[in-house]
Amino acid sequence: MGKGAGRVLVRLWSAGLIQGALALGGNQGSAAGGTALQALPLGVPKILLSTVASGNIRPFVGSRDIFVIFSVVDFVGGPNQLSRQILSRAATSLLQMARSWGALLPSPDLKNLVALSALGNTTPLVENCLQQLPVLGMEGVVFHASGAGGAAMEDLIRAGWFSAVLDLTTHELVGEALGYDIYTPTQPGRLQAAAELGLPMVVSVGGLDYYVFGAPSTIPEHLRDRKTLLHNPFNANVALKTEEFARVAEALCHRLNPARGPVALIIPLKGFSQYGEEGGPFWNPEGIEIFVRTVQSNLSSRHHLHILNAPINSSQVVKVAISELRKFLGGGRAKG
Amino acid sequence: MGKGAGRVLVRLWSAGLIQGALALGGNQGSAAGGTALQALPLGVPKILLSTVASGNIRPFVGSRDIFVIFSVVDFVGGPNQLSRQILSRAATSLLQMARSWGALLPSPDLKNLVALSALGNTTPLVENCLQQLPVLGMEGVVFHASGAGGAAMEDLIRAGWFSAVLDLTTHELVGEALGYDIYTPTQPGRLQAAAELGLPMVVSVGGLDYYVFGAPSTIPEHLRDRKTLLHNPFNANVALKTEEFARVAEALCHRLNPARGPVALIIPLKGFSQYGEEGGPFWNPEGIEIFVRTVQSNLSSRHHLHILNAPINSSQVVKVAISELRKFLGGGRAKG
Repeated sequence: MGKGAGRVLVRLWSAGLIQGALALGGNQGSAAGGTALQALPLGVPKILLSTVASGNIRPFVGSRDIFVIFSVVDFVGGPNQLSRQILSRAATSLLQMARSWGALLPSPDLKNLVALSALGNTTPLVENCLQQLPVLGMEGVVFHASGAGGAAMEDLIRAGWFSAVLDLTTHELVGEALGYDIYTPTQPGRLQAAAELGLPMVVSVGGLDYYVFGAPSTIPEHLRDRKTLLHNPFNANVALKTEEFARVAEALCHRLNPARGPVALIIPLKGFSQYGEEGGPFWNPEGIEIFVRTVQSNLSSRHHLHILNAPINSSQVVKVAISELRKFLGGGRAKG
Repeated sequence: MGKGAGRVLVRLWSAGLIQGALALGGNQGSAAGGTALQALPLGVPKILLSTVASGNIRPFVGSRDIFVIFSVVDFVGGPNQLSRQILSRAATSLLQMARSWGALLPSPDLKNLVALSALGNTTPLVENCLQQLPVLGMEGVVFHASGAGGAAMEDLIRAGWFSAVLDLTTHELVGEALGYDIYTPTQPGRLQAAAELGLPMVVSVGGLDYYVFGAPSTIPEHLRDRKTLLHNPFNANVALKTEEFARVAEALCHRLNPARGPVALIIPLKGFSQYGEEGGPFWNPEGIEIFVRTVQSNLSSRHHLHILNAPINSSQVVKVAISELRKFLGGGRAKG
């Protein structure tokens, strides 16, 4: 129902008949209404007023810019003196937004944008790459590889925002390849948009060495004997087993092989994350060795493979990533 | 840090120096920023722009009317051509809201409001009570007893919105008494605000016969052998054991006994929820018997105890609830 309603919304919006949309509901209504709102493009004003918004809103929001408001009161029995004010304010907000702006669309002067993926565990690498991009006449836009972020990155690549990707934190493939991870993309299929469009892709393996779960109680039972680190009380990281490195490597090659544009894959032998560095709690040289062998026998020979004797957060990775990007872009561009 | 920042916000708002607030952050920033925003009263414009909003936002929002927006892009590396637009739109929204409205405060003409608590399992009862309230010159405002809703009800009772409560769905006490339940109040202490203020309280036991969890994988291990029902794929209900009925009954009496105003407690012997009705999947006559005995030996004799040979969703419960409320309010009031 939500998907059908979404198609109706997009049709009305495309015809210029609506400039925004507001959905209202409890558990089931928020799921259907949120799904419908997700169909509208980035920037089109969308509000979800929900009796269950103080909880997990991922099923309602996905990877989209929906304004979500916990309604405080329920809607059972129709509007009353209190809920009428809450409803009226939400409606007024939508009106004000719709009068002020519309869809955010890529314009020609944005053609020098590069999409990057990051997690806390790869932030030093990503920040160093960001600093180098202006030298190439490029500007970086970072996505948090936490499921919704990676899915949003794929969406916006498809919408034409980017001329290249530095997809250095491909962590979300863990959930796709192994079936568990709270950071599994909200829409499956990481690493596909740039591959299909033939954009230059510089890819690395950030965070491919561990699972992410919520509070420790949410770790699946069969993974509870693994090495585990608490990023914070609501974020537990669990080490991958050696044989799982091979399955993730296969999935990565499977996604990269059909890419229509130039692809470079960088594998840092001294660890795929801060936690996974030599001497760190998730350091697993056997896992990395199997990963490398799997890639060597599965990655298309059209692609450029760089195996570096360094950890992911290192100047070596920055140097190779930027130099490959420069090559792919034809030796640097003027800033638009 | 969030609590301290909240005190600063309230001080600035009380002095008329700010009309709203916007917080920005990832995991840690959303927790601190959201906590700060929660300190501002209902209706004061508050926006949380978060890189992790597509997930569980309960720790950020609590029971408050915060506009939450998933930022789509990350903020690592400072603003860029895309994030600048997202930031600017969030800031513009806050400005527009702050120009349009302020705190929602109870006014004298609202003095005929009654707070009610509901879940899907008690909706027939609550809807029938709502229909009777105009006869008493009252209007009902319903709160969803899902943790944030009950906490919001306590907040707004304390803020002076209500002249009486029909707290028929006290389910959230299960989490408080037994220590497990996703619907545990976001701020502990259900049934306390009305008791402290001495408001007339008509109370029943809606949903005190089962736990609520999220997806089945989130049910604590030691409860997995219990009778379980899926309300939807993300909402699993688990039956209470007989001895747990006694612990919940004790907690209920403990909360009601100090009440400074008139209190009526209605116990429907034929089931505390739709699922718990005679013949229903959670029907547990031994549990109800222990519940009644525990209440009989623990409830203050100042309070009115009504034991009805009917299920919670029945005209008998409606009749007693409305008649007690009428008595407490002095035989009906003129509509304000």
